[in-house]
Amino acid sequence: MTLKTASPLTRLLGPIRADMEAVEREITRMTTSHTPAMEALLRHVGRFAGKRLRPALTVIAGRMCGAVTPQHHTVGAIVELIHTATLVHDDILDESAMRRQVETISRRVGNETAVLLGDYMFATCFKEAAALEDRFSSRYLAEIVEVVCRGEILQVHHRHDADMSEETYFRIIEDKTAALYAAALRCGAQLSGASREHQDALANFGYRIGSAFQIIDDILDLTGHEDAVGKSLGTDLEKAKMTLPLLRLRERATPEGRARFAAAFGSDDAQQRRSVLPLLAEFGAIESARETADAMVESARTELRHFSGAPEVALLLEAANYILGRDR
Amino acid sequence: MTLKTASPLTRLLGPIRADMEAVEREITRMTTSHTPAMEALLRHVGRFAGKRLRPALTVIAGRMCGAVTPQHHTVGAIVELIHTATLVHDDILDESAMRRQVETISRRVGNETAVLLGDYMFATCFKEAAALEDRFSSRYLAEIVEVVCRGEILQVHHRHDADMSEETYFRIIEDKTAALYAAALRCGAQLSGASREHQDALANFGYRIGSAFQIIDDILDLTGHEDAVGKSLGTDLEKAKMTLPLLRLRERATPEGRARFAAAFGSDDAQQRRSVLPLLAEFGAIESARETADAMVESARTELRHFSGAPEVALLLEAANYILGRDR
Repeated sequence: MTLKTASPLTRLLGPIRADMEAVEREITRMTTSHTPAMEALLRHVGRFAGKRLRPALTVIAGRMCGAVTPQHHTVGAIVELIHTATLVHDDILDESAMRRQVETISRRVGNETAVLLGDYMFATCFKEAAALEDRFSSRYLAEIVEVVCRGEILQVHHRHDADMSEETYFRIIEDKTAALYAAALRCGAQLSGASREHQDALANFGYRIGSAFQIIDDILDLTGHEDAVGKSLGTDLEKAKMTLPLLRLRERATPEGRARFAAAFGSDDAQQRRSVLPLLAEFGAIESARETADAMVESARTELRHFSGAPEVALLLEAANYILGRDR
Repeated sequence: MTLKTASPLTRLLGPIRADMEAVEREITRMTTSHTPAMEALLRHVGRFAGKRLRPALTVIAGRMCGAVTPQHHTVGAIVELIHTATLVHDDILDESAMRRQVETISRRVGNETAVLLGDYMFATCFKEAAALEDRFSSRYLAEIVEVVCRGEILQVHHRHDADMSEETYFRIIEDKTAALYAAALRCGAQLSGASREHQDALANFGYRIGSAFQIIDDILDLTGHEDAVGKSLGTDLEKAKMTLPLLRLRERATPEGRARFAAAFGSDDAQQRRSVLPLLAEFGAIESARETADAMVESARTELRHFSGAPEVALLLEAANYILGRDR
């Protein structure tokens, strides 16, 4: 299958175009199957082709710490496919119908095939990782998939929990989302022979921008328009997930507003839960969450002090800005 | 968590008890989590504790081809956990309520957590495989998980297909079930430094007994009693899967019987599909399928000619007989 990218980010990342093309070839190689049924499924998943932000981070980290090798392209492709496999399974969890303007796998061919296809893609990732000459990434990436799943399980566990703490929220998003950004950067650095200190700095940068990304995603799920964002929205309220805007609403509302929030969010009826939406504007909850995302990126920036003068710092900051400014 | 085994097979396999205890310790180590939510889930999955047939095969193959090392115990535990992870996901696919006398994960905590827990367990397996000194198993086991998923996807694809060929049936069961038996044996042999010829012979033995196992499983799904078998039955007809007894019914029935089969199996109503059951007895379809399972084990036996004189041959044959004789 061929995965096409046409995002503004790809243009922003012009300086690493040749490497990103090599990543793309690796993705195509890894997702080509000899069985027609598999081929059709993988081709459909290919239509989710995203921003390739994670492999870009692997390549950039490699350049910052030394030379980019074919192993960087392979690891970048693996990280992207891990991400895609989690999306295939997430769409089952969320009962979503749309993903990046196309039908989700679960909607198109049923939950059963979606479960199996996600499993197949994870297995492909681990097979490719196991074949790498460098042995760090295969163990580390498997650990990260554990972390991602643990974060998602924690989130499911806290559904309908109007009293969930912010600490739990940040733990969930670090695990389910930010850990894979951190891993993309750490692997890129490690494959270029970076010191542990440099690896940690880049991983910390990844944790922070990954968390910012998830906060923005959570805001869009409440306030975005499906046509612009290209995926099913409103699923967090549908599934009674407490996300940062709701936590900030709970914190900032008057006692009367808090009571309205508690009544709406506590309803068994998903339609009723949507009546929290006007409260978000009333109490500035979206702005508060957005400020936290901004602060996360600011704090990410400080991690890059270890690399002052490196031309790739600008690329990483561009990626971070893209995350904050994105409207889709 | 602790996984307890108390099957007749464990007694049969007395000669490898010390190794099987080491496998058990590895399983416990791999499924211990620091998060209370994960720990509770893994403990519940531990209650599915099965026959440990696959790790026993890894250990026996190791003894047949050389010395059993701690890596055999680790790989045996990994193979068992891969199997368990596929069960967690299978129970979602089959909408089963019971597995080995206990509630399935999907029934207990919902499909979403079941998807994520299966993913987590696969990741654990690949993390452990990646940490092995020997590099063969990690790549090979990931490939086998691809094969297992491909087989299951092919099966979903052929639901409601009353015209499915026997060739397709055997391809499905080789991929979804037998491949993991073959892998358990091949890894055991490979880790003991076996020749390619010996590895292949043991893998072929595994393919044949694994296929026999699945045929018996498919027979039990149609004819067994849930109390005795300890899991939800009748799911194959529920999901309109063509299994060997039905293929043999289609082949052996009179034209009138075939028409009744086609009408019943082709029904959209699962209850209606159950009216194929009396036809199975009428046309000796169960016996025919059982004879094929017997023949598979007979053909498996011939693969062991490479090892004539080895005391472990008797253990493998005992395992094979156990498969054929099992009533649960």
